Amino acid sequence: MSTDTPQSPIATATLDIQRDKGITAARGFAATGIAAGIKASGNKDLALVVNNGTERPAAAVFTTNKVKAAPVLWSQQVMASRELRAVVLNSGGANACTGPQGFADTHHTAEEVAAALTDLGTPTGAVEIAVCSTGLIGDFLPMPKVLAGVRTAASELSDNIEAGSSAAQAIMTTDSVPKQAACTHGDGWSVGGMAKGAGMLAPSLATMLCVVTTDAVATAEQLDTALRQATKYSFDRLDVDGATSTNDTVLLLSSGASGVSPSQRELNAAVAAICDDLADQLMADAEGVTKRVTVTVSGATSESEALIGARVVARDSLVKTALFGSDPNWGRVLAAIGIAPIALDPDKTSVYFNGNPVCLNGVGAPGAREVDLSDTDIALRIELGLGSGEATIRTTDLSLGYVTENSAYSS
Amino acid sequence: MSTDTPQSPIATATLDIQRDKGITAARGFAATGIAAGIKASGNKDLALVVNNGTERPAAAVFTTNKVKAAPVLWSQQVMASRELRAVVLNSGGANACTGPQGFADTHHTAEEVAAALTDLGTPTGAVEIAVCSTGLIGDFLPMPKVLAGVRTAASELSDNIEAGSSAAQAIMTTDSVPKQAACTHGDGWSVGGMAKGAGMLAPSLATMLCVVTTDAVATAEQLDTALRQATKYSFDRLDVDGATSTNDTVLLLSSGASGVSPSQRELNAAVAAICDDLADQLMADAEGVTKRVTVTVSGATSESEALIGARVVARDSLVKTALFGSDPNWGRVLAAIGIAPIALDPDKTSVYFNGNPVCLNGVGAPGAREVDLSDTDIALRIELGLGSGEATIRTTDLSLGYVTENSAYSS
Repeated sequence: MSTDTPQSPIATATLDIQRDKGITAARGFAATGIAAGIKASGNKDLALVVNNGTERPAAAVFTTNKVKAAPVLWSQQVMASRELRAVVLNSGGANACTGPQGFADTHHTAEEVAAALTDLGTPTGAVEIAVCSTGLIGDFLPMPKVLAGVRTAASELSDNIEAGSSAAQAIMTTDSVPKQAACTHGDGWSVGGMAKGAGMLAPSLATMLCVVTTDAVATAEQLDTALRQATKYSFDRLDVDGATSTNDTVLLLSSGASGVSPSQRELNAAVAAICDDLADQLMADAEGVTKRVTVTVSGATSESEALIGARVVARDSLVKTALFGSDPNWGRVLAAIGIAPIALDPDKTSVYFNGNPVCLNGVGAPGAREVDLSDTDIALRIELGLGSGEATIRTTDLSLGYVTENSAYSS
Repeated sequence: MSTDTPQSPIATATLDIQRDKGITAARGFAATGIAAGIKASGNKDLALVVNNGTERPAAAVFTTNKVKAAPVLWSQQVMASRELRAVVLNSGGANACTGPQGFADTHHTAEEVAAALTDLGTPTGAVEIAVCSTGLIGDFLPMPKVLAGVRTAASELSDNIEAGSSAAQAIMTTDSVPKQAACTHGDGWSVGGMAKGAGMLAPSLATMLCVVTTDAVATAEQLDTALRQATKYSFDRLDVDGATSTNDTVLLLSSGASGVSPSQRELNAAVAAICDDLADQLMADAEGVTKRVTVTVSGATSESEALIGARVVARDSLVKTALFGSDPNWGRVLAAIGIAPIALDPDKTSVYFNGNPVCLNGVGAPGAREVDLSDTDIALRIELGLGSGEATIRTTDLSLGYVTENSAYSS
């Protein structure tokens, strides 16, 4: 894909991504997804992921929002040990802005998971359990249903592929399809993942949650390095509307069950490939979306300046509404990049839609208004002509569907 | 209005604002607005404002966008003298991103105005003429029509009230009504103004242009002080979608024709009152708007932190779609303020809709989901509980109309 940044850790070596399997593609993991009755719809709403490996190193990335949900505050503490025995995830409620009672509810959920796993034969403490929640902000979870659901889920754990898919279904909110991906390295180790949401498309409910598993032998440090590189170039560069959830959480767990110790570079590549594929699925399923858009800024004085510029354009409501209308309105692109806090010379700035020049060195190109943007995929490139910095943001259009869906949810 | 910031220079002393008159309410100014044929619709599209005072001090504020239209680049040079004999404004084309030819076109327009005014009996140079343009970015102006229009406008100049209103009409793009305001101080001097646009609601055409006139005797320095204070608390705090035009221009001209020299404080108050009223009219007329919203952040560590916070919330697509749906979704407000780069303690943060508490110290308040937001006016207040910094941003909802109008314009 021409919009990949040259700095992406995704290996050029072939990693065959499969979307019909997810977290249980890595050996040593069991999972399940059940309907605990948290969602009024009766759909699946509670997922459990258990690491049955003898070593359980883990890494995590959490939301940078200063307003953090109770499960994020809990899981941040749990991750101090850099180990995870299990992750419990619920949809149907974010447990955010719920104060001390909300935190106690999260703690209680982790205790129930630990007790259930202990009853299954492996002594487990609550401090080994990460908790993730997604749904409307501000409501308390129906704890009797959550706790009963934890017990049911523990009794139905399985390491088969269907169990992983079931977990991916249970974390969906407005997602129209479950999102999972897996790949197996030639040396016999695998990485699997599941995700929900769409980069805060609807922050009341579309928190980005992601669990990635691997049976590679790796230390917590190696996992942390791989996860941070992967999220930097995938989820961190998916920007639907500039929003950042109170609940965003990405976890990477290793069971070591393959017995194979990949190099850091190999691990990075596999984890990045899974995260990149999941980010692509999130963009494609964003609510109300009619266009899948990549905004690339090239020729910036640095990669970080390119990233800032691409993000500003990707968040610009006027650019996004023009794209919804398949309108090659390059003037809005220039107006948007012009307010980015980066080095910029209008007379050196050019704009391309799907490779067609629409503005060259600050002046409209012949035929610019006739460029066809009717396809679903739109690649927008802004060349600043100042240096070699380049970065790409995945985003979407701003559609009537986005407004409709986001104006009518909580009520 | 409870959302006025305490720092606003708007005097508590009564200044009766009248909206049926504008720039010609100040003595010493002549104006007109004509249909020059720039707009395909045949509507008025060229306005001329002439200062017939013996002294012609002036002040200006221009867009901070790095991509500046030719008329902005021209007018910035003209303002080096801090004097203006006249302003010529056109709708129907922004003359932005038009390169050297676009700049030459602006220069030519100013020369034509100077020649026309010279022919009328007062020797005038192009360097005394400010030029403002608004419309689609990227197209060249139809110069024969513009130049002929300048001659027609010069021949129809008048100092009556209707002439000022005619000019206000000629600068409209998607504005549904012309916007003007005037007030007269008890000492016998007046300030009048006209504006168009809606804070970059549609940057291809909704550039914010504003001309303010006064017959008070004032130096260019005094005008500059008054204008900067006024725009800081009015147009700078109107944020419909975070966009900033390539063409935004606000001008203040004094004829001194009243012979009265007000104090700086009096001048500040009157200019601020006119700009504040015009900003209110811009918000009310923003395209596709169904809600007029004020976002106030109070209890911040400083006014500037409050302003940053209010702006972040006012730009949040998810908050704005919720308001469109009359949905008191305070969780989105907390998620939005949580990503503002300011000091914030979630446990001390409270949210009020129209005075009703919906979140107190980070936790939902009883009845929060039942707060009625069905009225057109919504006052959102976020109390941070950290200090005494307070600021208010005027904004709007994100409506289906906004998407419809902005996705279908240039095509």
